[in-house]
Amino acid sequence: MKHYTNSDIKNLDKLFRLNLINSCTGYKSANLLATKSKSDQTNVAVFNSVHHIGSNPAMLGFILRPTTVPRNTFKNIKETGFFTVNHIHETMIEQAHQTAAKYENDISEFNQTGLEEEYLDDFFAPYVKQSSVKMGCRYLNEYHILENDTILVVAAIEHLYFEEGIQAPDGWLRLDDAGTIAINGLDGYALPVLLDRFHYARPGKEIKSFFKKE
Amino acid sequence: MKHYTNSDIKNLDKLFRLNLINSCTGYKSANLLATKSKSDQTNVAVFNSVHHIGSNPAMLGFILRPTTVPRNTFKNIKETGFFTVNHIHETMIEQAHQTAAKYENDISEFNQTGLEEEYLDDFFAPYVKQSSVKMGCRYLNEYHILENDTILVVAAIEHLYFEEGIQAPDGWLRLDDAGTIAINGLDGYALPVLLDRFHYARPGKEIKSFFKKE
Repeated sequence: MKHYTNSDIKNLDKLFRLNLINSCTGYKSANLLATKSKSDQTNVAVFNSVHHIGSNPAMLGFILRPTTVPRNTFKNIKETGFFTVNHIHETMIEQAHQTAAKYENDISEFNQTGLEEEYLDDFFAPYVKQSSVKMGCRYLNEYHILENDTILVVAAIEHLYFEEGIQAPDGWLRLDDAGTIAINGLDGYALPVLLDRFHYARPGKEIKSFFKKE
Repeated sequence: MKHYTNSDIKNLDKLFRLNLINSCTGYKSANLLATKSKSDQTNVAVFNSVHHIGSNPAMLGFILRPTTVPRNTFKNIKETGFFTVNHIHETMIEQAHQTAAKYENDISEFNQTGLEEEYLDDFFAPYVKQSSVKMGCRYLNEYHILENDTILVVAAIEHLYFEEGIQAPDGWLRLDDAGTIAINGLDGYALPVLLDRFHYARPGKEIKSFFKKE
């Protein structure tokens, strides 16, 4: 096996290290965060760091890196308190990636990428119309990660929308039915297919599939 | 589209809400965390919350939920400072899921699941032999998330091992070549296939694939 120690990693070329360390923790979620400023300027940006924080209350988090953060997303969230999280689907990967381009401040990525703004139930921030799973979120708190000067933003899920056909009777959303993408590293877009879903594991009992009959 | 508000979500049955909110943020990484206590008792447990924190220094994080945390993983990490993160591959999903069963404290999940311990380069914690991407990690810090009493653990990546053939010349690890899994919700295991990888996005320029020729 190839082996890198921490000092090997430290001495790597910067871009090589970014590619390596961003891909070694496994697949990441693929979402578009959309916001609107107080002066009605919209903004949408690809994020690979959105993750589950808790179910009750329903909360998610994401990491902001000061060096790579889309400039307007965090400013708008702090200014207005609201943002939306929209799944990236297999048909949207080029548009989603294009949102990472450094546009001028007064240009909305919505206009530049073909992604469409959608407003639902009087929520302040725009959703991405093309997304088939989307959430309206409210800023709750932030935690400064001292080790590398990044920020974990924690938010409440206030609205959740999805295409009805992707939900199982027990609440679970089957993401491959939605065409949701996973991100490999910084710039790889992968389409997952469900292999299996298992019932609660118990000591000494064989794992049972939700789908396969005994 | 199906729509849940925050009060709808709050009033859901607990298990239904767990399934729904754990799947709505998108795919999660699929890893086994392995530890060893001071008294040489090993432990391995499935985690879907490992995520990238930063590349320089190379760090990852994961969320511990007090109600669902495997009891020994965190105790061993605090006691010894070390743990390993091992990718779950397509051939290991049943064994990985079985590690979530509540075994007695003096039973190692390694013995119960067919996952094998492996010790590399004198690192204190065991790796999972079957994993083709694995990291030796050192505890750095923890952040108490006040909103739901969970903990973000931040750790340094001190060793990184992987099968050489999965690395691109620019450092990136192609996870579908490794057979790495993504997790859908709490108990769904999906196998991603790379659709494309894109070069750095620039305003007004068409997105360029790493693979497709113009």
